[in-house]
Amino acid sequence: MTDQPTCESTRGQARRGQILEAAASCFAQHGFHGTSIAKLSQACGMSPGHIYHFFPNKEAIITALIEHKLEQSLDMVRQFEDAEDAFQAMLDRVDIGLQERTDLENAALELEILAEAARNPRVAASVRAADKVKRERLGELMRRASRERGGEPTEKAAETEIMITLFDGLYARFVNHPELDRDALAPLLRKALQTFV
Amino acid sequence: MTDQPTCESTRGQARRGQILEAAASCFAQHGFHGTSIAKLSQACGMSPGHIYHFFPNKEAIITALIEHKLEQSLDMVRQFEDAEDAFQAMLDRVDIGLQERTDLENAALELEILAEAARNPRVAASVRAADKVKRERLGELMRRASRERGGEPTEKAAETEIMITLFDGLYARFVNHPELDRDALAPLLRKALQTFV
Repeated sequence: MTDQPTCESTRGQARRGQILEAAASCFAQHGFHGTSIAKLSQACGMSPGHIYHFFPNKEAIITALIEHKLEQSLDMVRQFEDAEDAFQAMLDRVDIGLQERTDLENAALELEILAEAARNPRVAASVRAADKVKRERLGELMRRASRERGGEPTEKAAETEIMITLFDGLYARFVNHPELDRDALAPLLRKALQTFV
Repeated sequence: MTDQPTCESTRGQARRGQILEAAASCFAQHGFHGTSIAKLSQACGMSPGHIYHFFPNKEAIITALIEHKLEQSLDMVRQFEDAEDAFQAMLDRVDIGLQERTDLENAALELEILAEAARNPRVAASVRAADKVKRERLGELMRRASRERGGEPTEKAAETEIMITLFDGLYARFVNHPELDRDALAPLLRKALQTFV
C-alpha cells in the first residue's frame, strides 16, 4: 500500500514521456499546427482526456519538449564538467554531436520549434529561457577549458555564441544537404573548437 | 503599341514580386500552413484569382521564394568573384551578412521554409537544388580565395560546408538569443573565415 503513490507517479511519468515522444515525432512529421490532439491521441495510444490530464494544451507540450532538450544539453555539459580535461572531453564528443544533429527527426523538430518561436511569443519565451541556461553553463565551461589550456582569462561569451551557432547550425545544414560528408566535417568542427576555446 | 507586351510583362513581374513580398511576410508571421490564399490575397491587395494566375498553389510560392533567396546569394557570390581580392571582399561583407541573419522576419522565413522542407519532399527538393548551386559556387570561390592566400590546393568542400553552417546557423541563433552581441560576433566570424578559407 505504501508503495502506491510512487507507483502511480512512476506510471504518470512514463505516460507523460510516452506523450512527449509521440508529440516529438508528430511535430517533426506534420508540424505543430498540423498535429491535432486527436492525431496525437492516436499516435500515443491514449485518449485526448488522458493527454489533457498531463498537458493543458499543445503549447504546454512544446514547452515540455524544450525543457527536455535543455535537460539533454545540461547532461552533456555535466559530462564535460566532470571530465578531468574538459577541452579534451569536448573534442571527444564531436562525432556524437554531429550524429545527433544530422538525424532528420531531430532536425525537423528543432526547426519546427524555432519557426514557431519566431512567431509565437510564449514559445519564444520558453526557447529563450532554455537558451539562457544552456548558454551560461556552456560559457562557464568554455572559460574553464580555456584557462586549463593556458588561454587568456577572457569572458568567452562571443566564443560560446559562435560554437553554439556552429553546432546547432548543423540541423539546418542537414536539411539543406542530407548527403553531407560527416567524416570530413568532424575534424573541422574540432578545429573550430581549437580556434575558439 | 509595340511597347505593350514589355509593359504587360513588366507589370506582371511587379505583381509577381508584390505577391512574393506579401507571402514572405505572411509565412514568417503565420507559417506556411497558417497562411491561406484568402489571407495572402488580403495582404497583397490582389484577388485570389490574380494570385492563381501567377502561382498554381502555395508550394509554387515557396519554390519562388527559395529561388529568390538563391538569386540573392548568387549576387553576393558574384560580388566576391568580381573583387580583386576575393578573401578580403568576404571579410568586408561579414557585418552585412550578420545583419541580414539577425533580422526577425528573415530568420522566421528561413526557419519556416526549412521546417517545411524537413517534412515535405517537394519543398525539400527545391531547397536542396538551390543549396547545391550555392554550395558549388561558394566552394569554387573558397578554392580561389585559398589559392590567392597561398593555401594548399585542396577541395575545400568541407570548409565551405562549415562556413555555410556557421553563417546560416545565425538565423536559429538569433531566434534563441535576439539580444546577441553583434559587435562581439563580427570579429569571430572573420576569424572563422581566416581559419577555414
